[in-house]
Amino acid sequence: MSRKTNRQIQLAARPEGFPKGTDFRLVELPIPPVAAGQFLVRSIFLSVDPYMRGRMNDRKSYVEPQEIDRVMGGGVVGEVVESQNEKFNVGDVVLGMFGWQEYAVSDGKEVRVVKTGAAPSSTALGVLGMPGLTAYCGFLDICNPQAGETVVVSGAAGAVGSVVGQIAKIKGCRVVGVAGTDAKVAHLVNDLGFDAAMNYKNTDDYYGKLKELCPAGIDCYFDNVGGPITDAVFGHLNEKGRIAICGQISQYNAQQLEKGPRLLWKLIEKQAKVEGFLVFQYVSQFRAAKQQLSDWVESGELKYRERIVEGLENAPRAFFEMLQGENIGKQLVKISEPSV
Amino acid sequence: MSRKTNRQIQLAARPEGFPKGTDFRLVELPIPPVAAGQFLVRSIFLSVDPYMRGRMNDRKSYVEPQEIDRVMGGGVVGEVVESQNEKFNVGDVVLGMFGWQEYAVSDGKEVRVVKTGAAPSSTALGVLGMPGLTAYCGFLDICNPQAGETVVVSGAAGAVGSVVGQIAKIKGCRVVGVAGTDAKVAHLVNDLGFDAAMNYKNTDDYYGKLKELCPAGIDCYFDNVGGPITDAVFGHLNEKGRIAICGQISQYNAQQLEKGPRLLWKLIEKQAKVEGFLVFQYVSQFRAAKQQLSDWVESGELKYRERIVEGLENAPRAFFEMLQGENIGKQLVKISEPSV
Repeated sequence: MSRKTNRQIQLAARPEGFPKGTDFRLVELPIPPVAAGQFLVRSIFLSVDPYMRGRMNDRKSYVEPQEIDRVMGGGVVGEVVESQNEKFNVGDVVLGMFGWQEYAVSDGKEVRVVKTGAAPSSTALGVLGMPGLTAYCGFLDICNPQAGETVVVSGAAGAVGSVVGQIAKIKGCRVVGVAGTDAKVAHLVNDLGFDAAMNYKNTDDYYGKLKELCPAGIDCYFDNVGGPITDAVFGHLNEKGRIAICGQISQYNAQQLEKGPRLLWKLIEKQAKVEGFLVFQYVSQFRAAKQQLSDWVESGELKYRERIVEGLENAPRAFFEMLQGENIGKQLVKISEPSV
Repeated sequence: MSRKTNRQIQLAARPEGFPKGTDFRLVELPIPPVAAGQFLVRSIFLSVDPYMRGRMNDRKSYVEPQEIDRVMGGGVVGEVVESQNEKFNVGDVVLGMFGWQEYAVSDGKEVRVVKTGAAPSSTALGVLGMPGLTAYCGFLDICNPQAGETVVVSGAAGAVGSVVGQIAKIKGCRVVGVAGTDAKVAHLVNDLGFDAAMNYKNTDDYYGKLKELCPAGIDCYFDNVGGPITDAVFGHLNEKGRIAICGQISQYNAQQLEKGPRLLWKLIEKQAKVEGFLVFQYVSQFRAAKQQLSDWVESGELKYRERIVEGLENAPRAFFEMLQGENIGKQLVKISEPSV
């Protein structure tokens, strides 16, 4: 092993509103010894995701809150560099919740060897990982998109939204993306085959813009964002519309609940459904879903991008930028080079 | 025929906010002649319902708006007093959308002969009519209540809510009603067998009161009301909770959309669903549903009440009082005496 210390990023303070640098702390610690049944992983790619903001609050949600003064949790693709566990061999590339650090010792629980076929191992954190599964399982189950229907996706250029939109195209839908930069809009339409996309930062009239882009109304909405964009979508719902609530990133930094127009009456008028989900509820479908996603990636029907920030010390910045929408596709932090 | 004129109530003006007497007009008109294929109905009971408020706005919803200077639409149980239609005989008690008037000429389209078994014909407008079907079909389909689950019903003492709560009891659920008077609360618990009920006018702390009454959280919510009560229910939703949106009566008189806390994130955390419905979407189930409701009424498992205001001229008042929650059970207007 080439180094004797492990650098890790801890949560130093619970953010108030939008998180800031001093909410995090970079520490150096000895690399723990590897006991029988354990192995040591060197991190290669770290995933930063919107859900992490929720965990930073001191409030039980569907996951326990992130503890203060402990390493930030997070999904990592890494390489086994030392092993006392017969199921994991030195050189194996593995996926696990190893956290924001350079090295982690694991007993192998909820760790799996990365199998991404021809795609790079980083995709185990993106299109072939949790974001891809979130898109596939949640969208198909809740929205049940039918050919010819109009599908709107918010956060459309993100790791989840970009997959949802492409699946909707594969299913024969008209797909309209909502994103926050002109570059994202161009990417959605020119690279990913969306029928249209809008930059919500270029207009205050979300309702009018959606009307223009969705002349036949909206049958399915996959929501990563919430807030006024979602309000506007409600105004264009077709009968029997289906809304999947995957994320509400516009609300995650709110220090008190934002208010918005009461819109439940619209669900009556349109006999429409809104359903929230967590990817974990679909665990029994993961194997088949991942195979399908992998097939689509290999055939070129499903494209993906990654935005990579280099260096563990820059993980907080990568996280902030992801929350601000700087990323097209999956936001990753590269911690070290793969050995091969 | 004993009279030569027909009195009817027309919509004179579109209400601004809560409707008032001058929004309606009582007129006398000749009774129209009965042509071949038609029959004349003398109204006995008129139904006033929350949905009528929505129709008074000049805005297409799931039904066309009520026209100004035309007879107010509405469901009526009446008696055929003259007939040139072989399917409808003098003396038949029929149900149809005959409107707020004493007499109506019909061609029989969407009219049916009332069959309420041992129950009085007025129940064709209530527990065995549209409100009962709304409760039965919407609740069972969307909430899919399971024995042992906690079910909350808002507008619980109304024509729909009182049926929902009793069906939930039949299905083995813990049932908590929300209503607006102490008399309603007593009725729900003492007469209808609800496990608990709250008078929302006795507290500002809906959240705290629901916590007390629903110690195991809320699995199903059948919402007739909306607004802050519904907000509070969101705070107690269990995982995989199901919310059926039947009505939003707290919002119907709003002149602009009321604002409330944004709560869609809660649906993610709880993997929960909110679905709106219209009774018409279940038309294929009506026959079986009505049979089941009828059986329960006859066995005494399903109880109902009616609040009857006498006289066509008092229909607007009956409508206002229903919107204000004066009724326990179904609000009706008695237009004339049945001949037998």
